Amino acid sequence: MRGELTAQRQEAILIRRKSCNLSEIVKRFGGELIGRGSVRISRIGTLESAQAGDITFLSQSRYLPQLAKTRASAVIIGPEARDATHLPRIVSGNPYAYFAGISEYFNPPAAVKSGIHRSAAVEKTARVPRSASVGACAVIGKNVRLGARVVIGAGCVVGDDVTIGEGTRLHANVTIYHHCHIGARCLVHSGVVIGADGFGIVKEGGVWKKIPQIGRVLIGDDVEIGANTTIDRGAIDDTIIEDGVKLDNQIQIGHNVHIGAHTAIAACVGIAGSAKIGKHCALGGASMIYGHITIVDRVNVSAGTLIMKSLLQAGTYTGVYPFSSHQRWLKNAAHLRQLDKLADKIRELEHRLAAPKRKQS
Amino acid sequence: MRGELTAQRQEAILIRRKSCNLSEIVKRFGGELIGRGSVRISRIGTLESAQAGDITFLSQSRYLPQLAKTRASAVIIGPEARDATHLPRIVSGNPYAYFAGISEYFNPPAAVKSGIHRSAAVEKTARVPRSASVGACAVIGKNVRLGARVVIGAGCVVGDDVTIGEGTRLHANVTIYHHCHIGARCLVHSGVVIGADGFGIVKEGGVWKKIPQIGRVLIGDDVEIGANTTIDRGAIDDTIIEDGVKLDNQIQIGHNVHIGAHTAIAACVGIAGSAKIGKHCALGGASMIYGHITIVDRVNVSAGTLIMKSLLQAGTYTGVYPFSSHQRWLKNAAHLRQLDKLADKIRELEHRLAAPKRKQS
Amino acid sequence: MRGELTAQRQEAILIRRKSCNLSEIVKRFGGELIGRGSVRISRIGTLESAQAGDITFLSQSRYLPQLAKTRASAVIIGPEARDATHLPRIVSGNPYAYFAGISEYFNPPAAVKSGIHRSAAVEKTARVPRSASVGACAVIGKNVRLGARVVIGAGCVVGDDVTIGEGTRLHANVTIYHHCHIGARCLVHSGVVIGADGFGIVKEGGVWKKIPQIGRVLIGDDVEIGANTTIDRGAIDDTIIEDGVKLDNQIQIGHNVHIGAHTAIAACVGIAGSAKIGKHCALGGASMIYGHITIVDRVNVSAGTLIMKSLLQAGTYTGVYPFSSHQRWLKNAAHLRQLDKLADKIRELEHRLAAPKRKQS
Repeated sequence: MRGELTAQRQEAILIRRKSCNLSEIVKRFGGELIGRGSVRISRIGTLESAQAGDITFLSQSRYLPQLAKTRASAVIIGPEARDATHLPRIVSGNPYAYFAGISEYFNPPAAVKSGIHRSAAVEKTARVPRSASVGACAVIGKNVRLGARVVIGAGCVVGDDVTIGEGTRLHANVTIYHHCHIGARCLVHSGVVIGADGFGIVKEGGVWKKIPQIGRVLIGDDVEIGANTTIDRGAIDDTIIEDGVKLDNQIQIGHNVHIGAHTAIAACVGIAGSAKIGKHCALGGASMIYGHITIVDRVNVSAGTLIMKSLLQAGTYTGVYPFSSHQRWLKNAAHLRQLDKLADKIRELEHRLAAPKRKQS
Repeated sequence: MRGELTAQRQEAILIRRKSCNLSEIVKRFGGELIGRGSVRISRIGTLESAQAGDITFLSQSRYLPQLAKTRASAVIIGPEARDATHLPRIVSGNPYAYFAGISEYFNPPAAVKSGIHRSAAVEKTARVPRSASVGACAVIGKNVRLGARVVIGAGCVVGDDVTIGEGTRLHANVTIYHHCHIGARCLVHSGVVIGADGFGIVKEGGVWKKIPQIGRVLIGDDVEIGANTTIDRGAIDDTIIEDGVKLDNQIQIGHNVHIGAHTAIAACVGIAGSAKIGKHCALGGASMIYGHITIVDRVNVSAGTLIMKSLLQAGTYTGVYPFSSHQRWLKNAAHLRQLDKLADKIRELEHRLAAPKRKQS
Repeated sequence: MRGELTAQRQEAILIRRKSCNLSEIVKRFGGELIGRGSVRISRIGTLESAQAGDITFLSQSRYLPQLAKTRASAVIIGPEARDATHLPRIVSGNPYAYFAGISEYFNPPAAVKSGIHRSAAVEKTARVPRSASVGACAVIGKNVRLGARVVIGAGCVVGDDVTIGEGTRLHANVTIYHHCHIGARCLVHSGVVIGADGFGIVKEGGVWKKIPQIGRVLIGDDVEIGANTTIDRGAIDDTIIEDGVKLDNQIQIGHNVHIGAHTAIAACVGIAGSAKIGKHCALGGASMIYGHITIVDRVNVSAGTLIMKSLLQAGTYTGVYPFSSHQRWLKNAAHLRQLDKLADKIRELEHRLAAPKRKQS
């Protein structure tokens, strides 16, 4: 299987191949050039996979051994590693960000044809600018307003009264419920559901009664939302995702959650209703946040950690059970349920040891 | 962004604005009126966001400070808080449920046009009553039977031989596999998948062989299912969700699970195959339930807890690692793997302290 | 509800009823026949649900009590249980795998009509063989190549340049991004998203900048992927799922992950970017794997366990907090945050007990 696919890839790459030399890259993106500026670059690659004609990068010193072995034609490095290679190189204060820029240059997103596909169902009252694209079998509700160059992927369903800012792209099979708002230059991946009802129920006479969910979801600009992530509409007020937030896949955001600008959240995180997350936070994969708590700016939560109380000071918080071999776990976990008794025993021992002393004195 | 959106919302609200006075509300929904019954109400709101013309509610005494500051025109309160405000108010034994009722009154779900959208693909043998609605690009399989007033959202795919009870609504992009049954008055949110194959595999000669999954999913009446939740079909017998169960988003329910009536399950929960959950249980967010175990009625499982054994007594069960600052966690977690050695040391200390005593006696 | 449905099921079963006798089964599938070979079998069932005319199986000795009570007409058992029943029986070394085979015989997957549904949108440059099936409202991109007998379910979106091997089936509402490859005889369930962008971001000037995700997802042959699972495309190189891997529902696989052949992964698992999982591994439900780590062949990870470091030896690894009643948990969890202090106290006690001894000596 692999041989055929690799050949196929080469072909794909040849088609999109742009080419320029190292000096031109430095002219366009800045940085300090060391070595032969005439070396031609047509592709980016990792230290391990790069071939002749590729440029690669070194972001962390622990990858220095791979740098020594790379077949790349040039490398982007930080000032501390400027002499770590003899390859033609670009020195940049943030090699990874520099690399992101040139990767975008060599790999521009495929152009999307503007216009409405004949199989799409668009309500008459929807405003779809000429520069926008509505894919096959997409469905656009009443009074929807799309900004310039918005791309609605195939199979998406955009509910009534939704507004989407310019340059935003919904990949295929995204669902947006009525009255929600998505800002400009957002990227929303397939399977995302925005604006479904929050989990609002109340018990009456032994059965659950639904609380109507009448708020919306408001999403700022430059937000990315990963595949199959769900963001519930507010119960009464709105659920709010501020500018520049980055959400990975399969994240669940409950009703009335508020996420501050430029916070990044890894995959499989759950945030319960009405939690308020600050700006510039980072939530590790599969971390879980209780409802109705507040997390201030610049908090990091480690992967797999359950946060049950407000975090009112910036810093990193962790609470995961360290794994071990199953045998060792069995031995230790039994004691975990008896920690209070172990503590009692220690207290008793201290007491008994103290008692004779008192006698002696 | 917010200013424009707020204006837009006001407009939306004006359109749907109903209005009545407090006396009329009490006449319709019961409760005791205290204060001026002529005050006009046209909207519901939270203690914090309510404006003049809004009615709000107090469900827990910890929100009393917000009550003092609310701008609402009226409030629903419990008997214990009847004198906690001078505002016109309705006293009810269950203010939150009371509020749910009037919220529904002020915010009825948008009417859905009955009929089959021209872009939908409906098999000839499917039974779609006149009062039902089939959205754009929805696909209805052979022998499907829809009840009265069923709403099938845009982009839904309903497999062959599926039956859906009256008044049930599937939001956009829901998938129901063949032969499954959904009861009456259910609400199924976008991205839900009902009836996919359970994870049934057996190793033979070093490779996995699939066990055909030939059971169904049977869902009772008045069930709500949150966005992107998945419920697998049974392996041989059926997977069963009883009446009145409420499921939040991104829940995974394995094959042959049985969930008792009126159980509520928060987001991100996973229930492994053949687990049996009782009636009136509550599973906290991201809790995980082993397969082939039994949980009796009225069990609560705390968020983030993994249940590995049957729970045969009602009550609340918890098992989560309490978080702390990362530094403190590092200090403590190391000991966790050595708990058995700590216990040994304590035992030895006890022994050594006991030994001299015996000598002395 | 149940009565009606049971009746309906009987009907469905009658329609698909094949029938043969026990001797014919043994002739076709092997094994040793004990008892009356002429007994007619038309269906498979569990020990508990089987009726006259059904064949059932005993896979574990703990189900022997159910065997005594089963109403089945015949049973498949292992050699160790050959005398555990008087029923006509087939003795097989692997009763569960044997059962899987005859279940497939009695329950062949419903035939799918080949051809392209009139409501599907297929690009002219796509290659769809006559034997393939493209469902209603499915969307097939440019240069897509489908193998023989491929089934694309209703509402699926297959991106440009995707290749899919022969006999593979995508159930409804699956999304495959551009340039990805899926092997032969795979089964992909509804809501799956393959090839969405990985979570590649880098901070520059206080805001997140996107790293273009230009790798692909390559999936081998005989892979099954459960509902709503997401597999991200590689950042630069590819994300790879080898032959025979079995993935349950709601699994998240980050960019550049590599999963070895015949590994099975239960529901709700998250695997962070660039993790490398070996062959023949088993990851329990809701286990979480850090990025950039290596797990060797034949490792088992217990349900709910977070793996933070490479696992370089085969075996079973566990790290979950054992649950208890909430009251007991409260008592013990408090001490967990003070484990280092408990350890200090024990050390001090040991020291104090040792000191007098030294004096005595």
